[in-house]
This record gives sequence, C-alpha cells and structure tokens, in this order.
Amino acid sequence: MRRVRNLRLLLEYDGTEFCGWQKQPGERTVQGTLEEAVSTVVRRPTIVWGCARTDAGVHALGYVAHFHTESDASVERLTAALNGVLPEDVVVRGVDEAAPGFHARFDAVARRYQYRIATEPTAVWRRFAYRSRHRLDLEAMATGAALLVGEHDFTGFTAVTNDAQPVCRVLGAAVAAEGPFILIAVEANRFLYHMVRVIAGTLMEVGRGRMQPEQVGVALRTKDRRAAGPTAPAHGLTLLSVRYE
Amino acid sequence: MRRVRNLRLLLEYDGTEFCGWQKQPGERTVQGTLEEAVSTVVRRPTIVWGCARTDAGVHALGYVAHFHTESDASVERLTAALNGVLPEDVVVRGVDEAAPGFHARFDAVARRYQYRIATEPTAVWRRFAYRSRHRLDLEAMATGAALLVGEHDFTGFTAVTNDAQPVCRVLGAAVAAEGPFILIAVEANRFLYHMVRVIAGTLMEVGRGRMQPEQVGVALRTKDRRAAGPTAPAHGLTLLSVRYE
Repeated sequence: MRRVRNLRLLLEYDGTEFCGWQKQPGERTVQGTLEEAVSTVVRRPTIVWGCARTDAGVHALGYVAHFHTESDASVERLTAALNGVLPEDVVVRGVDEAAPGFHARFDAVARRYQYRIATEPTAVWRRFAYRSRHRLDLEAMATGAALLVGEHDFTGFTAVTNDAQPVCRVLGAAVAAEGPFILIAVEANRFLYHMVRVIAGTLMEVGRGRMQPEQVGVALRTKDRRAAGPTAPAHGLTLLSVRYE
Repeated sequence: MRRVRNLRLLLEYDGTEFCGWQKQPGERTVQGTLEEAVSTVVRRPTIVWGCARTDAGVHALGYVAHFHTESDASVERLTAALNGVLPEDVVVRGVDEAAPGFHARFDAVARRYQYRIATEPTAVWRRFAYRSRHRLDLEAMATGAALLVGEHDFTGFTAVTNDAQPVCRVLGAAVAAEGPFILIAVEANRFLYHMVRVIAGTLMEVGRGRMQPEQVGVALRTKDRRAAGPTAPAHGLTLLSVRYE
C-alpha cells in the first residue's frame, strides 16, 4: 500500500480573470483550476484546500494550499508538471512536504494583505492597483490605520452583519508611499468577509479628508458598517503571505 | 489666427496588445491609437511624433512624444480628456508646453531601457518579464555588460546588417538582482534595431556560462551578429525614460 503524502503548495496568481478562490460550478476559480491541474498530474481526482477565500479579482503572491496524494513524484517534478499544465495566470512557486495533519486554512496563524492605490494613471499596473483621483493625506491614513491594531470586533468592517466570530487580532496595519503608489498593508490572525477592502475604502475616505482618522475607532466601537467607508474595488488587493507556527 | 502650440506627452503603455509604436495600416499601434485620441480631443486630424520605434510587445513607462495643435485647452484638461478616450493599456502621465522646435525623436540625447528577467515562474509579472529557466551568474553578466559602455559600432548587435550609422554611445549598462528578477539597464544616445534585445539575449548566454563575458567584446570588434547571442523576447523590455538637453 502506498504512503499518503500531504503536500503544501505556494501559489501566485493574477486574480483578474478568476471568480475568486473557491470552487463554484460553471465559474473559473483558482481552486477549480488547481484541482484540475493536480488531478491531471497525479492521475487521481484530488481536492486542494486553500488558506483563504479570496474574492473575485483579488490577487495572491504567496497563497498557501495543500492536498493529499499517493503520488511518489519528487516535489521538483510536481512543481514543473503543475506549471506545465496550469494556465499562465496561476503559478506554483513551490511544493513541499507538510506534516500529515497540516491544514492550509486551519493552521494559519496570520495572513498578510496589501492594498495598492495608484495616485497617477497607470497602464502597466492597471490590473493590480486601484486608481484614486483624489489627493490622499498619507499621515492621516497612517493615524487611522494604527487604530486597527489589536483585538477588536470588526463587525463594522464586514459585509456579513451577523458573523458568529467577529473578533480579529490585527497584528499590524501600515500605510506607505512607493513612487506613485500608496500601499496599505494589514496583517491579522483572521479576516472577515470584505474586511481588508472595507479597511482600504475607509482609509481612502480618511486620506481624502471626508472622514477623520478617529472615525476608524468609531466604526470599531459602534460595530456599524455605515460608520466605515465604502468597500474598495477588489483588483487593488493582493494576499502577500500566510504564516504558520 | 490662433497660435500653434507644440505639446509634449509623457506616456506609459503596456505593449502586450500593441503592434509596436509605429502606425501601420490595419494594425493596432500606440502611435495610431494616440493620434486617434489626440485628433478626437483637439477636433483636428493630428500627427503624433514619438521618441523611438518600440517593437511589438515592448512596454514603456516614460515614452515621450509631441504634437502641434491650435487648441487652447489647458495641459491639465488635455491630460484628462486624452485619458478619458484612450484605451486602458496606454496612459498619458502628463502634457506640457514644449519649445516651438522641440522634436521628441531628434532632440533626445539619451534613452534608457530595462530588460526584466524572471528567475522563478510568475503570474503577476508574466507580461513584463521574460522567464528564464536557467541559473544565471550575475557577476559574469555584469562583467559582459561593462564592455558595452562607450562609443562602439554595434553592427554585431542588430538585426539590420547594413545600418548607415551603426555607431552608438552607451552611457551605462548595468545588471542587478531585485527579488526573483534580474534587471538589465542600458542607456545610450541611440539604439539600433533590436539592439537592447540582442544585448539582453547575449548577457543571458553569458549568465548561463554558454558564452564568456569577453564574447561581448568579440561581437563588438568583429561586427558579426553570429558572435552575439539570440534576440531576447520583446515582452521583457521596457523603455524607462528619455533625456533631452
């Protein structure tokens, strides 16, 4: 009898033409595309488990997934074979052997996202940056972002109003300029539905001066979605990395 | 009678879906696309003159062009109006008033190009980086690049064997690592047809160890195209900037 291996995948994808991570009948999704590729390469129908359900249009540079297989191919051969059959907008950066019980989603202790705002029009970055036509005050945005750090009920920052577990621990939230871009980076143990996009939308309102930085604290305390800003468009968002113990 | 203004355009474009800069009947080109946009905005058929004839698939971050117009719209309004009618893969970063005799091509004293090599598979950068599957020796590549600097006959590095003016002055040629990328930057007063791409192809041969760095000097001295490496694919190349006196 063959040994069952648990393999971890490190993935990069351009989310533009995917209907998000999660498999859905009739839609092109990252999970569906990967399961097809893995099943082809290991010659068995195989389920691929992901670390997060990214929305349609969201990108990833360091997405983590895992799958079980009886294949005895080396991780190098699997990497090359998967990249050989995958479409060009999703790439396997690496495959490695995980502990038998490893789970990409349940074992993750932190996820790091980046929201990229273009302050000037851009052709090259148009799929990966949201173009803002407003002058944004970086310092005000940073002040607002700092209020997110710590353990809070994020009900005010999600599209789902009655999440059973609305408390997240934000480990870091920073705003920085990089050439003509403003980057918002948020790391947390977990995220609610649309949470990073509502954070980005709120911080842009703060940057425009339409909200005070303190409003971030108000939206946290009141748990009122209307106290936060709009949901920023998906294409500015990228999952950068996932941490495990 | 209205005053004729000479306006300079600073452009960014994703060359993936363009058949290069230069207008050609029946092809989608950057020049053709821009002339259509300018002619619409100023309501007169208008010719747009560019600083360089980039190949099909080559990108630009700081392309310079100019056109003459009797329009008296402000440069801010023209910028906004042009970006309003242009497709999303070409963007006007700025419009400014140039001297009456200014010519984007003939007045340029230097152009700077960058060739981006991905040493790992990438989904996000696939349109802007050439993926090399070989281990590349950065130091050998830098040694080869240094031999390009100065005034040389570049007949060995062009697809056109009998260029009447084959002498170019290379002001700088550098090779640097940036994360999983290797960047080749070349600045020269002028470039021959395919010259940067042959330079990139040659330096990649040097990086792989299939050519010695000194071979760059041999290709210069012998003016023999066969002494240089292959022409690297267009999509790794970006025109970064153009200098004027």
